[in-house]
Amino acid sequence: MTRDKAIAFAAEKGLPINVTSRSPYSIDQNVWGRSCETGHLEDIWHAPQPDVYGYTSDPANNLPADEVIISFAEGLPIALNGRTMSSLAMITELNKTAGPHGIGRIDMVEDRLVGIKSREIYEAPGAMVLIAAHSELESVCVERDLARFKRQAEQRWTELVYDGLWFSPLKQALDAFMATASKHVTGDVRLTLQGGRAVVTGRRSPAALYDYSLATYDTGDMFDQQLAKGFIELFGLPAKIAADRDRKVAS
Amino acid sequence: MTRDKAIAFAAEKGLPINVTSRSPYSIDQNVWGRSCETGHLEDIWHAPQPDVYGYTSDPANNLPADEVIISFAEGLPIALNGRTMSSLAMITELNKTAGPHGIGRIDMVEDRLVGIKSREIYEAPGAMVLIAAHSELESVCVERDLARFKRQAEQRWTELVYDGLWFSPLKQALDAFMATASKHVTGDVRLTLQGGRAVVTGRRSPAALYDYSLATYDTGDMFDQQLAKGFIELFGLPAKIAADRDRKVAS
Amino acid sequence: MTRDKAIAFAAEKGLPINVTSRSPYSIDQNVWGRSCETGHLEDIWHAPQPDVYGYTSDPANNLPADEVIISFAEGLPIALNGRTMSSLAMITELNKTAGPHGIGRIDMVEDRLVGIKSREIYEAPGAMVLIAAHSELESVCVERDLARFKRQAEQRWTELVYDGLWFSPLKQALDAFMATASKHVTGDVRLTLQGGRAVVTGRRSPAALYDYSLATYDTGDMFDQQLAKGFIELFGLPAKIAADRDRKVAS
Amino acid sequence: MTRDKAIAFAAEKGLPINVTSRSPYSIDQNVWGRSCETGHLEDIWHAPQPDVYGYTSDPANNLPADEVIISFAEGLPIALNGRTMSSLAMITELNKTAGPHGIGRIDMVEDRLVGIKSREIYEAPGAMVLIAAHSELESVCVERDLARFKRQAEQRWTELVYDGLWFSPLKQALDAFMATASKHVTGDVRLTLQGGRAVVTGRRSPAALYDYSLATYDTGDMFDQQLAKGFIELFGLPAKIAADRDRKVAS
Repeated sequence: MTRDKAIAFAAEKGLPINVTSRSPYSIDQNVWGRSCETGHLEDIWHAPQPDVYGYTSDPANNLPADEVIISFAEGLPIALNGRTMSSLAMITELNKTAGPHGIGRIDMVEDRLVGIKSREIYEAPGAMVLIAAHSELESVCVERDLARFKRQAEQRWTELVYDGLWFSPLKQALDAFMATASKHVTGDVRLTLQGGRAVVTGRRSPAALYDYSLATYDTGDMFDQQLAKGFIELFGLPAKIAADRDRKVAS
Repeated sequence: MTRDKAIAFAAEKGLPINVTSRSPYSIDQNVWGRSCETGHLEDIWHAPQPDVYGYTSDPANNLPADEVIISFAEGLPIALNGRTMSSLAMITELNKTAGPHGIGRIDMVEDRLVGIKSREIYEAPGAMVLIAAHSELESVCVERDLARFKRQAEQRWTELVYDGLWFSPLKQALDAFMATASKHVTGDVRLTLQGGRAVVTGRRSPAALYDYSLATYDTGDMFDQQLAKGFIELFGLPAKIAADRDRKVAS
Repeated sequence: MTRDKAIAFAAEKGLPINVTSRSPYSIDQNVWGRSCETGHLEDIWHAPQPDVYGYTSDPANNLPADEVIISFAEGLPIALNGRTMSSLAMITELNKTAGPHGIGRIDMVEDRLVGIKSREIYEAPGAMVLIAAHSELESVCVERDLARFKRQAEQRWTELVYDGLWFSPLKQALDAFMATASKHVTGDVRLTLQGGRAVVTGRRSPAALYDYSLATYDTGDMFDQQLAKGFIELFGLPAKIAADRDRKVAS
Repeated sequence: MTRDKAIAFAAEKGLPINVTSRSPYSIDQNVWGRSCETGHLEDIWHAPQPDVYGYTSDPANNLPADEVIISFAEGLPIALNGRTMSSLAMITELNKTAGPHGIGRIDMVEDRLVGIKSREIYEAPGAMVLIAAHSELESVCVERDLARFKRQAEQRWTELVYDGLWFSPLKQALDAFMATASKHVTGDVRLTLQGGRAVVTGRRSPAALYDYSLATYDTGDMFDQQLAKGFIELFGLPAKIAADRDRKVAS
């Protein structure tokens, strides 16, 4: 039975269901977020009507800003505004704070596991705040090569989870990678929540790799500028040799 | 000479420079964007003061929304609101439209090529609108496996460009990959610009892989639900065999 | 009907088939190679019996060595021992030369697309000689970063082809990458074929990136050893900063 | 001082060094292997002369075959022919057994960290036997998706080690990945060593994912062939939709 036939059948029989032909969406929701599909959304040129949203208000309301400080230990969120809490309490509270600002609305066409593209509206206010904060703390605490490879590993992790392979051997091995990669992702991130935006405005960490004395251009700069010459010459040497070869071959 | 000494020297000698100890930022700018560093920004817990921004207004102003339609052909932007224009005209005009909405502000700690972390403020209003539009059109026109691998290739492309290797052999080969991957990224994307947000509200393409008749749950659904059983069983078979093995080994 | 029942049925009815219960293998073959499975091979501890092989002789025969020179242009083999020939003639002739030396035997457990592991015996004498030669010419003509990324792209290409996705969009985009990456893979490779081994003994190319004047330790060395200090210091700086952080956090 | 000048200087002064202008190689060696460079090897078209080798005999000697069984536990070699031994004893003994067969000779042009290509001769008889055995045991015990991603992770691991970043944060996180990925790489591998070849002839494992009842084509086959239809249809659906689109756009 297709969705429209099922709705007509329920109406005829007086069955109590939560969709009508006026609000015919297929909705899934839990503490992490809410997804909505079908109805007018199946026309991907059609902008979402306001009734598709359930976890967030219109960001154009532009309520007065909220500021939050999220604390992480080894990659996991452990405190909100100085109050230690469980992950469940954290996400619940962030949903309540960020939702009214219209944060976490996502309108996308995605690739379903079964091989077709589908348009979905997601709302994940708390999750999107956590991701913004966590990502920025990683920028401060995770070394460059590790950060670069971690992006590839994250993509694969995400594909596995989306595709339902939560318990797969690759997921387990990636989890071990992530645990080690997160060992030093400890510290605080301050964000401003307003008008659909979760904007990081500060980060601090006892395990930061950001080093003021190397980064400053002012007195106290410890970075030895002399080293740059040798580095740049050899870093670029393979590309330079290739360019010489290209010219030689072309002539 | 460090930056603070250079400023003092210029003041003493009456040299006309564009930085003062009150506005001491190191600024680079071009049509793609504007970057700002040093000064109070070197304290990464310190929120950016308003005077660091030059290309964008405060998104909290929440001006009335603008709507734009950007048209792409083979991955490249070719028209804005139906008017064909060059890439240069496109980015210039989008900067003018998106900047007042505060779109494209980025405050981040990044990894410099020379091995240190540095905090930067970027403003790229037009570029960020283009990226949002292009990315969503790709979701509609690019096949799943290609989209997944392209993310890895994009990351490597970006690292090369950031690291100054624009003319390297790998960059050239990735460009060939991108050209082929973009062959069908043709169509229109509609966005709402307001309050720091560039939000896609519609997409349409003569080369879409989104297929209403496969995606709908209503009458006309062409997707054969019977196929799912065999697919899911075999898709999950390696993970299932591994789980059986794990249990056997553990016992 | 399972394989053993099908063989019994054919024997009973006098049907002419090419397998017997003594030689019960499932064999596929073409000019690229020959694969053999089932029978005693299904016991993966059992060594292959000599009758599984059809394209190669026992490498322990240790026939007198053959030497071949294979010439490539833009990544494709174009001449054997100086005689220009088609790819088809090349592979056919290399099969004839390398097969008697027992080159190209592969005994492996592999992952079938449908999710199970299977044991296969392959023989691909000509293909394995071509791969050895081509791979070594790439080492001489392909720049490091390109070579490193190409390995990932090759793996994905191979997975697609193995999984039957020859005409997929990702395969097409990877082909474009490969074509550009192969632009300078031009030159000659000399190999010795004997006793199961195809060993490269020489390579020369008008597009080589190998530069004698940079690689020699003798008089004429053009490599500026002074550059190494700055390079090593900055190349290792992120790891050094991370090690300092680790010590600080641990104490 | 370049290498040729240093040799002349030592000869003139009567200094006891281990190189002469007739045997001028730069040699590094330890229990894992031996590398040799410079001298006539700097001409990459020149085949290696016999005097470059120190750990291996000529494989063309074709000595009578040796058979070994290597046992692994969680990815590490723990026993040789049933005798438990340390990794050091294992590699030492395998060097002694495999070296006379000429196993583990590698002649390659490689990319040095400092950006130039260099030609090296390596001999690693024991290491190459271990790699062949370990790799095949992984084929039996490691699930497909994990095996595919592990290849990428291995490549990155190898690049880091080659580039001297043994203690880097990425190396540590990859080590954690590898430890989990190797949890079930336990079992025995039998190899024949002869004529330059280390050939796996059997593998067995209490943690094998190879399942005779799924892989056989004979009576007892448990694989449900009916599942293939749904799987193939949906596995290929994205490529099929893309092919339809390509035709539509082209017409």
